[in-house]
Amino acid sequence: MRGIPDLAEVDAMDAADPLRALRDRFVLPEGVIYLDGNSLGAASINVFNEIETAAKEEWARDLIRAWNTAGWFDMPVQLGDRLGRLVGAAPGQTVVCDTTSINIYKALHAALAMRPDRPVIVAEGDSFPTDLYMAEGVASTRPGTVLRLEGVDAPTIEDLIDDRVAVILVNQVNYKSGRLRDMAALTRKAHDAGALIVWDLCHTAGALPVDLDGSNADFAIGCTYKYLNGGPGAPAFIYAATRHHPDISQPLSGWWGHARPFAFEQGYAAGSGIRRFLCGTQPVLSMRALKGSLDLWDEVDMTAVREKSVALTDLFIRLVEARCGAFGLELESPRDGAERGSQVSFAHPHGYQVMRALIERGVIGDFRAPSTVRFGFTPLYVGYRDVWDAVEVLEDILRTGAWQEARYAVKEAVT
Amino acid sequence: MRGIPDLAEVDAMDAADPLRALRDRFVLPEGVIYLDGNSLGAASINVFNEIETAAKEEWARDLIRAWNTAGWFDMPVQLGDRLGRLVGAAPGQTVVCDTTSINIYKALHAALAMRPDRPVIVAEGDSFPTDLYMAEGVASTRPGTVLRLEGVDAPTIEDLIDDRVAVILVNQVNYKSGRLRDMAALTRKAHDAGALIVWDLCHTAGALPVDLDGSNADFAIGCTYKYLNGGPGAPAFIYAATRHHPDISQPLSGWWGHARPFAFEQGYAAGSGIRRFLCGTQPVLSMRALKGSLDLWDEVDMTAVREKSVALTDLFIRLVEARCGAFGLELESPRDGAERGSQVSFAHPHGYQVMRALIERGVIGDFRAPSTVRFGFTPLYVGYRDVWDAVEVLEDILRTGAWQEARYAVKEAVT
Repeated sequence: MRGIPDLAEVDAMDAADPLRALRDRFVLPEGVIYLDGNSLGAASINVFNEIETAAKEEWARDLIRAWNTAGWFDMPVQLGDRLGRLVGAAPGQTVVCDTTSINIYKALHAALAMRPDRPVIVAEGDSFPTDLYMAEGVASTRPGTVLRLEGVDAPTIEDLIDDRVAVILVNQVNYKSGRLRDMAALTRKAHDAGALIVWDLCHTAGALPVDLDGSNADFAIGCTYKYLNGGPGAPAFIYAATRHHPDISQPLSGWWGHARPFAFEQGYAAGSGIRRFLCGTQPVLSMRALKGSLDLWDEVDMTAVREKSVALTDLFIRLVEARCGAFGLELESPRDGAERGSQVSFAHPHGYQVMRALIERGVIGDFRAPSTVRFGFTPLYVGYRDVWDAVEVLEDILRTGAWQEARYAVKEAVT
Repeated sequence: MRGIPDLAEVDAMDAADPLRALRDRFVLPEGVIYLDGNSLGAASINVFNEIETAAKEEWARDLIRAWNTAGWFDMPVQLGDRLGRLVGAAPGQTVVCDTTSINIYKALHAALAMRPDRPVIVAEGDSFPTDLYMAEGVASTRPGTVLRLEGVDAPTIEDLIDDRVAVILVNQVNYKSGRLRDMAALTRKAHDAGALIVWDLCHTAGALPVDLDGSNADFAIGCTYKYLNGGPGAPAFIYAATRHHPDISQPLSGWWGHARPFAFEQGYAAGSGIRRFLCGTQPVLSMRALKGSLDLWDEVDMTAVREKSVALTDLFIRLVEARCGAFGLELESPRDGAERGSQVSFAHPHGYQVMRALIERGVIGDFRAPSTVRFGFTPLYVGYRDVWDAVEVLEDILRTGAWQEARYAVKEAVT
């Protein structure tokens, strides 16, 4: 293993960083090192400008006409195509709409309808919970459908795959550990068993290159407010491979998914292609915030993002283990960058207090029960010096025992 | 009938209008008379300020912490209660979330689950279509469920109500004609037959006083971007009477509806009360726009809104019939203000062209096929003089035949 870098080497990494200029496009508060972009991405000038234009010019000036003049009605499809580029989806397969939870429902419903004789949905026991809750909800609408979980019913997803499985819902990166799955391999395994697969990209879209088309994925869903920086609660996305479009049916059959939405027909007639996953009228201001961020993403090369992401997370692991290793931190994320998303988690027996102390000192990560301190590294606005400085603060808190102050023990809800 | 008012009388009506000062809180373009607030409400200073605060202060400064510090997570419930006041719902029965279409799905699903042995959903053939499309979608998830329509299967909703009916989905005001239903009477009729009722308030919330609790309604849904001025595609709302809360089950069971959303449990456990209708993470910027508008609504007395609404629509009908009666317009809305929402529709054999000519002259209403020109009157920012001026333009277009210009015949999509 290489030696531990010193500050001069870290500054040199920043100086050589091809993404460095992007940092100035974001608006981050003074004195904060933001390592929670994997929960909520940072604000940018682009986004501010877009929502101001949408509200003060388009809405206020054009009123109802803005649905046409400003292209509001087409945003789900147009932004979907632009987002698609970041996740390896050719145009016409991705739409931006609704929430991640709702889109899970649509994708699972469509998949179940395509496998009517198979009773099993497979998911991960350590998934972000809403995936499981939505899978339960979908299962409840088709009698005899059961949900089987990795880590509960079997050690691994692979062990659960057999010819009774209709669909697998799986995260490309685990929200807690940052473990990265092999999309192509697991998709192949699912297909070999005759099952379909829905990929949850919440922790990979905008974090690393995703290759939905190249992996032969069936469906995918994800949010846009983490690495994609689309704004708090920005609309989610859903992808379906073109080969499945004629077979998509899902019961959230609102007017935006109709073949002729403005003909005001009495009966539902599903639109063509990926539009079948659209339902109701979308939140334009939140959608426009996302557009602002996607404008910025148009300038970004995902390969450069991945290279920096691995370098940032490698650096963090090495510095933490070298300088804080004596203080009870245990790495929970894969050590090999190739198996890791853009985040690093450590276990600490008093992780909650440690994270609260960090946040008070301006290093914002988050805590996941029972003992995980989690740090996300967004290459667009986090630099190598940020990593260095964050570890300085972490070391100080651990060495001095500052986290033991009583006020850090009071629990607060953390999203 | 009284005589036709002259301009002096119209100006006197404005001078005596108790809501007149509210007009200055809205941002409307010069030279426009906006009579389409029943499609998309107008922008206001309040809303601009809220989205700027949410984006530039809360998000950019507090980042992930804003979910707590700025109260983002509680907005669906808090805004729901405030909106509830406008539709006659005591606190704890209304949440703001998702879209009208999605909320129809939840309400119908919950109602069907409460009437497992009844196969029929009743709706209106001339409903805004997404209601019917969503009812179809829900019906598809429960084998044997059928959708029966007023005007198709029977002349009236009342004729369709029998002991096979599980739930009735009905608009309080018809989007096209403006016809207002008697909520208390129809709810009683539904209950007498053992059925449940879901009221669609899209064209009444913010347009007139609604009395959900007093009418003993079961469920209600509606949008917030029409008379409530919450912004384009602002999140919708859903209401359930307290007596039904323990029985609510619906399959869009996302983490925001969980009893302990931050405990990250594997299994879904429905939260208490109206939270059971929450699903995924909500679009904060669009939600905050709505908050800005609800701040303004806190100052408004719905009785005054209704009085002005009836006076505006009465004045419009009287002036149009007196001045444009010779030009082929036929009233499609109820003549009696007590039976009418806050809109007026006329049929004209060339309604599409007439409306396009009006819009080009700055009078913005909308067209609904085959022949309806539709005008919405939002008492918060439309005055009596606006009505006078709009009729002047309409009369001129009809008298001169300006609508016959070839360019008005080209069809465009109109939302």
